[in-house]
Amino acid sequence: MTANPISPTIPLDRPGKHHGFLRLPYSRNDSAWGSVMIPITVIANGQGPTALLTGGNHGDEYEGPIALQSLAWQIEPEQISGRIIIVPYMNYPAFRAGTRVSPIDQVNMNRCFPGRPDGTVTQKIAHYFNDVLVPMSDVVLDYHSGGKTLDFLPYAAAHYLDDAEQQAACVAAMQAFGAPYSMMMREIDNVGMFDTAVESQGKLFVTTELGGGGTATARSARIATDGALNLLRHVGIMSGPVAPSGDGVLLDMPGDDCFHFATRDGLMQPLADLGEAVTKGQPLAHIWPSDRSGVAPVEVLANMDGIVAARHFPGLIQTGDCLAVLAVT
Amino acid sequence: MTANPISPTIPLDRPGKHHGFLRLPYSRNDSAWGSVMIPITVIANGQGPTALLTGGNHGDEYEGPIALQSLAWQIEPEQISGRIIIVPYMNYPAFRAGTRVSPIDQVNMNRCFPGRPDGTVTQKIAHYFNDVLVPMSDVVLDYHSGGKTLDFLPYAAAHYLDDAEQQAACVAAMQAFGAPYSMMMREIDNVGMFDTAVESQGKLFVTTELGGGGTATARSARIATDGALNLLRHVGIMSGPVAPSGDGVLLDMPGDDCFHFATRDGLMQPLADLGEAVTKGQPLAHIWPSDRSGVAPVEVLANMDGIVAARHFPGLIQTGDCLAVLAVT
Amino acid sequence: MTANPISPTIPLDRPGKHHGFLRLPYSRNDSAWGSVMIPITVIANGQGPTALLTGGNHGDEYEGPIALQSLAWQIEPEQISGRIIIVPYMNYPAFRAGTRVSPIDQVNMNRCFPGRPDGTVTQKIAHYFNDVLVPMSDVVLDYHSGGKTLDFLPYAAAHYLDDAEQQAACVAAMQAFGAPYSMMMREIDNVGMFDTAVESQGKLFVTTELGGGGTATARSARIATDGALNLLRHVGIMSGPVAPSGDGVLLDMPGDDCFHFATRDGLMQPLADLGEAVTKGQPLAHIWPSDRSGVAPVEVLANMDGIVAARHFPGLIQTGDCLAVLAVT
Amino acid sequence: MTANPISPTIPLDRPGKHHGFLRLPYSRNDSAWGSVMIPITVIANGQGPTALLTGGNHGDEYEGPIALQSLAWQIEPEQISGRIIIVPYMNYPAFRAGTRVSPIDQVNMNRCFPGRPDGTVTQKIAHYFNDVLVPMSDVVLDYHSGGKTLDFLPYAAAHYLDDAEQQAACVAAMQAFGAPYSMMMREIDNVGMFDTAVESQGKLFVTTELGGGGTATARSARIATDGALNLLRHVGIMSGPVAPSGDGVLLDMPGDDCFHFATRDGLMQPLADLGEAVTKGQPLAHIWPSDRSGVAPVEVLANMDGIVAARHFPGLIQTGDCLAVLAVT
Amino acid sequence: MTANPISPTIPLDRPGKHHGFLRLPYSRNDSAWGSVMIPITVIANGQGPTALLTGGNHGDEYEGPIALQSLAWQIEPEQISGRIIIVPYMNYPAFRAGTRVSPIDQVNMNRCFPGRPDGTVTQKIAHYFNDVLVPMSDVVLDYHSGGKTLDFLPYAAAHYLDDAEQQAACVAAMQAFGAPYSMMMREIDNVGMFDTAVESQGKLFVTTELGGGGTATARSARIATDGALNLLRHVGIMSGPVAPSGDGVLLDMPGDDCFHFATRDGLMQPLADLGEAVTKGQPLAHIWPSDRSGVAPVEVLANMDGIVAARHFPGLIQTGDCLAVLAVT
Amino acid sequence: MTANPISPTIPLDRPGKHHGFLRLPYSRNDSAWGSVMIPITVIANGQGPTALLTGGNHGDEYEGPIALQSLAWQIEPEQISGRIIIVPYMNYPAFRAGTRVSPIDQVNMNRCFPGRPDGTVTQKIAHYFNDVLVPMSDVVLDYHSGGKTLDFLPYAAAHYLDDAEQQAACVAAMQAFGAPYSMMMREIDNVGMFDTAVESQGKLFVTTELGGGGTATARSARIATDGALNLLRHVGIMSGPVAPSGDGVLLDMPGDDCFHFATRDGLMQPLADLGEAVTKGQPLAHIWPSDRSGVAPVEVLANMDGIVAARHFPGLIQTGDCLAVLAVT
Repeated sequence: MTANPISPTIPLDRPGKHHGFLRLPYSRNDSAWGSVMIPITVIANGQGPTALLTGGNHGDEYEGPIALQSLAWQIEPEQISGRIIIVPYMNYPAFRAGTRVSPIDQVNMNRCFPGRPDGTVTQKIAHYFNDVLVPMSDVVLDYHSGGKTLDFLPYAAAHYLDDAEQQAACVAAMQAFGAPYSMMMREIDNVGMFDTAVESQGKLFVTTELGGGGTATARSARIATDGALNLLRHVGIMSGPVAPSGDGVLLDMPGDDCFHFATRDGLMQPLADLGEAVTKGQPLAHIWPSDRSGVAPVEVLANMDGIVAARHFPGLIQTGDCLAVLAVT
Repeated sequence: MTANPISPTIPLDRPGKHHGFLRLPYSRNDSAWGSVMIPITVIANGQGPTALLTGGNHGDEYEGPIALQSLAWQIEPEQISGRIIIVPYMNYPAFRAGTRVSPIDQVNMNRCFPGRPDGTVTQKIAHYFNDVLVPMSDVVLDYHSGGKTLDFLPYAAAHYLDDAEQQAACVAAMQAFGAPYSMMMREIDNVGMFDTAVESQGKLFVTTELGGGGTATARSARIATDGALNLLRHVGIMSGPVAPSGDGVLLDMPGDDCFHFATRDGLMQPLADLGEAVTKGQPLAHIWPSDRSGVAPVEVLANMDGIVAARHFPGLIQTGDCLAVLAVT
Repeated sequence: MTANPISPTIPLDRPGKHHGFLRLPYSRNDSAWGSVMIPITVIANGQGPTALLTGGNHGDEYEGPIALQSLAWQIEPEQISGRIIIVPYMNYPAFRAGTRVSPIDQVNMNRCFPGRPDGTVTQKIAHYFNDVLVPMSDVVLDYHSGGKTLDFLPYAAAHYLDDAEQQAACVAAMQAFGAPYSMMMREIDNVGMFDTAVESQGKLFVTTELGGGGTATARSARIATDGALNLLRHVGIMSGPVAPSGDGVLLDMPGDDCFHFATRDGLMQPLADLGEAVTKGQPLAHIWPSDRSGVAPVEVLANMDGIVAARHFPGLIQTGDCLAVLAVT
Repeated sequence: MTANPISPTIPLDRPGKHHGFLRLPYSRNDSAWGSVMIPITVIANGQGPTALLTGGNHGDEYEGPIALQSLAWQIEPEQISGRIIIVPYMNYPAFRAGTRVSPIDQVNMNRCFPGRPDGTVTQKIAHYFNDVLVPMSDVVLDYHSGGKTLDFLPYAAAHYLDDAEQQAACVAAMQAFGAPYSMMMREIDNVGMFDTAVESQGKLFVTTELGGGGTATARSARIATDGALNLLRHVGIMSGPVAPSGDGVLLDMPGDDCFHFATRDGLMQPLADLGEAVTKGQPLAHIWPSDRSGVAPVEVLANMDGIVAARHFPGLIQTGDCLAVLAVT
Repeated sequence: MTANPISPTIPLDRPGKHHGFLRLPYSRNDSAWGSVMIPITVIANGQGPTALLTGGNHGDEYEGPIALQSLAWQIEPEQISGRIIIVPYMNYPAFRAGTRVSPIDQVNMNRCFPGRPDGTVTQKIAHYFNDVLVPMSDVVLDYHSGGKTLDFLPYAAAHYLDDAEQQAACVAAMQAFGAPYSMMMREIDNVGMFDTAVESQGKLFVTTELGGGGTATARSARIATDGALNLLRHVGIMSGPVAPSGDGVLLDMPGDDCFHFATRDGLMQPLADLGEAVTKGQPLAHIWPSDRSGVAPVEVLANMDGIVAARHFPGLIQTGDCLAVLAVT
Repeated sequence: MTANPISPTIPLDRPGKHHGFLRLPYSRNDSAWGSVMIPITVIANGQGPTALLTGGNHGDEYEGPIALQSLAWQIEPEQISGRIIIVPYMNYPAFRAGTRVSPIDQVNMNRCFPGRPDGTVTQKIAHYFNDVLVPMSDVVLDYHSGGKTLDFLPYAAAHYLDDAEQQAACVAAMQAFGAPYSMMMREIDNVGMFDTAVESQGKLFVTTELGGGGTATARSARIATDGALNLLRHVGIMSGPVAPSGDGVLLDMPGDDCFHFATRDGLMQPLADLGEAVTKGQPLAHIWPSDRSGVAPVEVLANMDGIVAARHFPGLIQTGDCLAVLAVT
């Protein structure tokens, strides 16, 4: 088996606070002996669990990177018991390009776990997390948002798991995160997800969706930062009370009917905004043709009663794009 | 002088409701005898003024196109006295590409007026509006939003003009539009703007900024549609009372101090959201480095007291980008 | 084994005529929850065999897509006994781009069978045909033409097969198609072809080459449409006599000598057109240099007696491009 | 006035046969001191007129380049009286790229005459022809074909001119060329054409359309070569009888009704081929949707009686593309 | 006349040392209200002349930028009498891209002077130098090197000028710079050069060529830095003796014969290196074909006796590229 | 197992001198039946070993291709005993593009051995060398240089091998090559290298690094050519004495400390040139910021005493790029 070619430029297990890089050699036309340099911060002190905090799994989602830069700068070793490993920009090439998938290999990092040590750049990074960083961690928080093409109600999430005890622990951690909404998910297609890779190693895992559109707001950044602090307190790495920033509405996506797809290409006019309650049969959006005027729009109707939990973000939409997701409380 | 090569496929002056195209011949590698086909709807009935309603001057701003498609579909000739010329996607190639400027010539339409009949594609379109459509109009409403890289409080706007009478009429029209906010603007650099081209022909002119990020919401689309109906009632083309959708906060941008620029490339963390009041010296944002962790952020401080009226939208920002605009009430 | 992620939006086995899509989830930068939507029509009625009719295996070949759109629109359930599954644009992303291979993964669909359910977009599509649609079919007609870079005499084709009975059935089906020419082929390198995938499942298989250059003519489109109707009558799905549109010249490509390659880059001047008879040693083309004038051309001579059955289409040619193929009657 | 920066590497006025280049300095990223090198051949002997023979005005039209390479190679000085200037690839960068317009500046050479000596690369080349080569010529033959996106019946053409004597001379030269068809044209928009630039200098001018699709056939190449030889005999540079290759059907495009445009994007199914006679109201083509199956096609009907003289070539078509041109005899 | 839109973020005329930017508003798809931020340093103290020091006129030439960053960091106000304006990266977008011409408008800055205030980005920058910075300067030093595609012997240069007094002053300044070589140049085509723009305003002007290949060495960077210090001492802004780094061989390019061009595309094998003396008729290089082996190379022979002063740098060469320049002592 | 699809157009085992191609069928959008045509020359005569000489493993390294074109042209069969197989441009698509990795599949050929017969284009080429050409050879010389982004002292190299006898033979061959420097290497990561593939088949193997920057000089080309002749004499294929062109300084890279990496993006100012001796702690380079002036540079210090054996070539550098390599004598 090939060894993973990534090496950290700082020790991962020494007390104190260290900032450095995960260095991945990457030979290319514009640098024969170049590297992908993924920033990493490790803060360690005394006894306690290890938390791995990750952002930038998709490169166009910003709440996680902002919160993690803030924590890497602000948390001092003497404030903690245990270890915090912070990687704000997991898929670093995608983050720098401001894109969901890596510009190097076009791979969606969150569908390529457990990765390959002899694969493409994204697969090598995934493999390093799977084989090196996750095994040394007790709890993993992986931040997501909608990115440039989706927008979400701000929620933390946990999965339905086969191991009831592990699931209960994850649910408790999700609630400790304290986002305005919490979501129980059972992924239909969880093959290749970081979530699955972490959970299958028996770790405590929390993920989030905290907005979208390829931006962050002062509010969504606060939810992200507060959530991580809450989680660190919940697992005992930091001290102090857990302080949720929202009222914690619990949501559920009961089945495929939640998902609404565009049936034409065109210009999308939403008729209900995020958080609004809709009833079955109510129009969620009009799709206007992008090549002529004076034609009736295509209507997309709600398949069920629910509240709008996610929606397509760009003004233009294509057939087959997910236009909206309804959730139930 | 070369004649403008654009020809409409429908009559512009006949009673009734006609949908067609402004056809601009455009010879290119993938179609030697191709055309740019800009959708247009003309609704005419009886006596009355002519209103020219335009969207898509920048191709990634969606409230205007949505409202204009809706109006082109819903307004019937018998509802009006006069004429409504609707062009939802002025810079049609940019609209199809979802970009601010045209993918054909990289020209920003709103800086190329009065255009050229023998120029590039965008210049030819601008010239047609300047020389054909504006002269036949009495009132012009040109929709803007922030596009993919800016976000605005929703407002209609009028300019400080040398002609006090024209200015008063424009201000009245702006207020009739009835957006949640109204903005008085004196453009520092108004060379090449559609606004200037229209105003210099002595027309009644209203423009808007109605959100941004390259999306539209149910709410912002309603503001856009209601505003046009209000304006059409205000000028007598439609009947009925003007019904503003907002409470009409009047804003002003008193000078260059309103504008705040990024002084570093990096990851932007907003510290105040649109509509929030800030005081001079208060941090508006942190900019985190995009290539390492553990470093203090650069702070951008408010130059003045005010409320956040506009902001940079993408999560990444570059030195020299406008990070935020403060306005005063 | 991973399940194929494609799901049809219509039932494949219900009587009547249904139009819909094969929906393949495809997460990408410009749509995180987007899909590839491959149009499909299924017409079913009573008892009888199932025919799978496919076009767009290569995205720049148009006779198949035209004929299949025409059939999907015109054939009514009551005209048939059995089932017709029509997919006019198999490699849908390539068809939309007007390219031979997919713009998403650069894969040539006709060299990637049997596909992979966890592979690239093209591999996933191929796998769905191989594992789902072909097994439910009795006869498969896959249309090809020369695409943008080759031009062919119009012919239907069958392969030399190890199973004499299967071969005889395929030859009979090819003759029933009734193109102006018929071709017996033994592929040197048949690995990855749809043809091989279908034949190895024991199905009746007919393929075609019906022109080229990235266009279709009224004549070639008629040959394609008539051929499918003939084939459907031949297998008993439709009633009525088989009516060949041509006189059915039988061609053979006896060996590697049929193929003539360019030995220089340059400007190609054909000296014999499609369908012309040539003799061994006769010049088939001149290749003129593309960077200077006044130099003698390179001549490409016929390796054998034959008729010109296929040729390089673009005016420019590169070393190693197949310049012409000779066939014998 | 800036001087044109092009210099020939061979003398233009010396007896004998010289092959060289028009060298245009062109500084660019991949060659700071690079050049555009346009091949040129000059054949001169004794007294007589000067003929300028040009191809590659559009870079994807091949009959002219083939014929001119053949003539540059075969004609010897002792066969002529006067001078022949041959430029097979006028827009050399476009020819090398196989594109209609130049890849350097995206300029359509045949719309940029009289050019500019301080303009873009294409404008500089046009200016050199306009100011240097045309003035030293008595007759100009400029070859065109349909290129990659149009297909034409093979014809030579002359324009309706204000100078009756010049027009008559041009018509006689067109007929001497001896293509299967001849076309009288009055360009609606002749601004910037090489044709206009030549005619306005009082020269004898012939142009052609000899096929299309971005290819040439043995037949169309013969028409091109024979036509030039006929023309050279007609003006007395070569001796011997004029030998037309076709029967010389005279065509006319009487007005805008000749042109038929696509009204939808989609897949084009031609219903009449080049040279076929059609009657007013007869369908010329079906346009099928490229995103779904089972929908009725859009029909494009003939505006008039005529024969199909030109058509859109690629299988896909866009709204506003010229789908077909009808001519009358 | 439109005003130039560039504004400096620091005062240009205040004593002390200031670092800032020339800010040019630039609206584009990825930042609607973005800017081009050109770094600038101004050092001023007491009485004395103003020197304008510029690098990055071409974006892939590095000795100037390195020397100017070094000077901007090291020189303190108290060391000077007068003012030094330092712009290390004139064509900032090209410098960031590592390209000769701007990636925004493909314009070669050194052929676009005097620029345009309403032109493209590069034209606006050139105009600001021409109309604002040069007029306030007494002496201008503009650094050049060969960039990625040329390599030069290291020399400072002056032009033959109509004003003998100005020429003598420039020659003296060139010699004070003290590079290993000095070159007298009469530009054949000086239209649009920064050199010409500066000289025509009567200023003292020195330019350089200090290596090439898109790199810098420790040695070439020292020549560049020492040369500027020498020049500043020569004009009295700094004190101390002028200390040339080389022995100052004086070179001349007597005419067009100095330039040697490639006559074929291919792989270049130099047969004489920079600084080597060659005699007329001696082979300077072999050009091997890039598409086959076993063919004799094309030889490029010296037109004259001389030493190799410049050469084409990349391993591949195209017809018309300048392969070598010979100079005489 | 799939057979490798490459076929040579010349015999590989016949006496005499033959020039031809390794033809690899490659179906693509711009040539459905196209090929990659890799030039090859085979010279054979009498009894003796077989030498395989390869260049262009990376497409932007030119000493090997130049030397091999020269040898293919100059060596006659009667000069040798045995066989010489010359492939100047192994990764032919990369060589034509002037890039390190293939433009077709972005694969670095020297990390994809032993290749795959059913893989991408680069993998297929690698497999043909591994399975066909290397097995028929006794000695392999593979030329490398620094390419466009690295620059090396000119050296031949051998590896530390497990088989002492094989290593001794390789060292002797390296010394026979006679470059100015010789280098003993133990690759940390030799997976996928051509070197490893050849050595593991028990062959005599020599490789080189002979300069860089994407160019060649007269001197470096002579070293390359003389080295091959020396090696051919050393193994007995040619007669005559081995004549080293340099004095053969023996170098060693003792460990990871040899490698120095950039810790910031910016403009690189080297402070020591190739071949210079440096001591531990001495600055090797300054890195200046590319976005502002007036800031102190980042210094990169020597980790050890040594001489500069390799360095980053382009003027701009990125974090993680190898800035310099020190070697010891």
